[in-house]
Amino acid sequence: MKEVKAYGTEAKDKDLEVLTIKRRELLENDVEIDILYCGVCHSDIHAAKNDWGNTTYTLVPGHEIVGKVTKVGNQVKNYKKGDLVGVGCMVDSCQECSACKEDLEQFCEEGMVGTYNGKNKHTGKQTFGGYSTSITVREEFVVSVPENLDIKAVAPLLCAGITTFSPLNHWKIKKGDKVGVIGLGGLGHMGIKFAHAMGAETIMITTSPDKAEDAKRLGADSVLISKDKDDMKKHRGSFDFLLNTVPVKHDINPYIQLLKRDSTMVLVGAIEPLEPMNGGNIIMGRKRVAGSLIGGIKETQEMLDFCGENNIVSDVEMIDIKNINNAYKRVQNNDVKYRFVIDMESLKK
Amino acid sequence: MKEVKAYGTEAKDKDLEVLTIKRRELLENDVEIDILYCGVCHSDIHAAKNDWGNTTYTLVPGHEIVGKVTKVGNQVKNYKKGDLVGVGCMVDSCQECSACKEDLEQFCEEGMVGTYNGKNKHTGKQTFGGYSTSITVREEFVVSVPENLDIKAVAPLLCAGITTFSPLNHWKIKKGDKVGVIGLGGLGHMGIKFAHAMGAETIMITTSPDKAEDAKRLGADSVLISKDKDDMKKHRGSFDFLLNTVPVKHDINPYIQLLKRDSTMVLVGAIEPLEPMNGGNIIMGRKRVAGSLIGGIKETQEMLDFCGENNIVSDVEMIDIKNINNAYKRVQNNDVKYRFVIDMESLKK
Repeated sequence: MKEVKAYGTEAKDKDLEVLTIKRRELLENDVEIDILYCGVCHSDIHAAKNDWGNTTYTLVPGHEIVGKVTKVGNQVKNYKKGDLVGVGCMVDSCQECSACKEDLEQFCEEGMVGTYNGKNKHTGKQTFGGYSTSITVREEFVVSVPENLDIKAVAPLLCAGITTFSPLNHWKIKKGDKVGVIGLGGLGHMGIKFAHAMGAETIMITTSPDKAEDAKRLGADSVLISKDKDDMKKHRGSFDFLLNTVPVKHDINPYIQLLKRDSTMVLVGAIEPLEPMNGGNIIMGRKRVAGSLIGGIKETQEMLDFCGENNIVSDVEMIDIKNINNAYKRVQNNDVKYRFVIDMESLKK
Repeated sequence: MKEVKAYGTEAKDKDLEVLTIKRRELLENDVEIDILYCGVCHSDIHAAKNDWGNTTYTLVPGHEIVGKVTKVGNQVKNYKKGDLVGVGCMVDSCQECSACKEDLEQFCEEGMVGTYNGKNKHTGKQTFGGYSTSITVREEFVVSVPENLDIKAVAPLLCAGITTFSPLNHWKIKKGDKVGVIGLGGLGHMGIKFAHAMGAETIMITTSPDKAEDAKRLGADSVLISKDKDDMKKHRGSFDFLLNTVPVKHDINPYIQLLKRDSTMVLVGAIEPLEPMNGGNIIMGRKRVAGSLIGGIKETQEMLDFCGENNIVSDVEMIDIKNINNAYKRVQNNDVKYRFVIDMESLKK
């Protein structure tokens, strides 16, 4: 085992602080990565606070990782020292079930191994995330980062990016489609960029009129204020697709009414019980409400390649690791545009 | 206008009774039908009692109509006197919008005209349904009934039949698929027959163990009791498709968990707010919850042809029109296997 410096927490009511953790020794299929940047996802906070009741401490969050390869195992084929790479929400899966064989490791039938708060398949110990100076990951869960991008702003693509790219890609959004992105946060701002880059007429749907200008800067063709009943009525039955990034309990019925016949709204944010859906709203127009979870590794690579070609990165605010606890408070207050990224140099000093 | 004998009600708190109504004179595209049989749909009761708040009285229910053509307009192409025909839930639509052009008149953008409680496009008056001796319908909304079937048991196919056939057909259910039909009533019993005839492994999913034997008689390969948590767990993630016929508010979350990754549950019964759906249940496994409403006229004809080829009809209990009020009470108590059909001779006496 190799000792590594990290930032994490020992209990749900404690702040994050500097820790020493142990990474596994490099295996023959492993890639060792010097972490340059790590995004701060709202999930990190839920895990740190044990909001979902499944956290094992010590917890080291972070699953939006960008870094440079420092070492590779002797069976590694696709990476070498110095390569710019990324690691997202998963670091392992069974590689044998039907989901894994279809490149959908996020739905691995044995359960994918989370980048943090998961169970390392080799050591049986807790996995530790990207708030750390280094991480060791099997090759199959490492992706290549296009060199032309602003790499500190690439980090959030590994979770917020793939979470929004995957449903737009899976439901085959194309030029001319009218796509609504509901909610403008870490996920929503990426949803706008992707839908716009795919050629869709992209509408930001938000409760907040003061987000209109920024939504347009990000690529929205127009903004629909969901509290404006007249405007909502005007857009009724007109959307080919809705990407719903709202991360909390909410009423999806007004959004369903925006869908065209046979069209789909995909939830990517709210993993909790929603307000009651009216069955009649989906029966009329044969509409669909679906969910989507991050994306498989192959699709994550496709997403990064798409970002390289279209020069897409996240809008980020850089922080030092020592400011992480304050950053958590700001995320909880929706006070970030649109993703904090930790400059991991600040942990190495 | 032509006077016709019917059975209907003048107010929500009144029983149905014999009435005289006016049908429009035969137009050049019209087919006049002598009604032989009319099924009793739960919607008839909701309309009679104004449960949905949109009933205009006088109301004459009935949208599961089978009869013989007595007269045709001079532009009618496909029907002649003596033909055995059916009329379902719709008698008109704009015929020009994208939905109508795609043979999905049930989603007509101007609104389809209901067989009863609709607005006759020619007279501007209320439409009256099939609890009547005769009905006049434009040719495009008349379907042909296969002569080999037990025609009194064909009537419910025009609503309960198409409502369950359409989603199974649209979602391309095929041999070997594992299909669950949730709820065993007028809709559910047709769902079992169709899924079985399409070659699916058909599982009846019900709260009532005492329905098991009957479900198997109807074509179910096995029965899953939804209150049996162990059995529900055993079937978790195993269904290719779920047809949810439950007509009232209920908790869809346990059923969603039965779906395979990327699979769909279609609601056809509950047009009211459901218990809160947990977003996480559809996000995990990229699952879909959709709705479906009857079917278009072309698909209704396909359904009848499929029934002719596979000798499928509804399980019915015949009644005289004078027993309709008692039949309504029995439907409300779920005391019918599985559809009442009115022998319209009893109104002609």
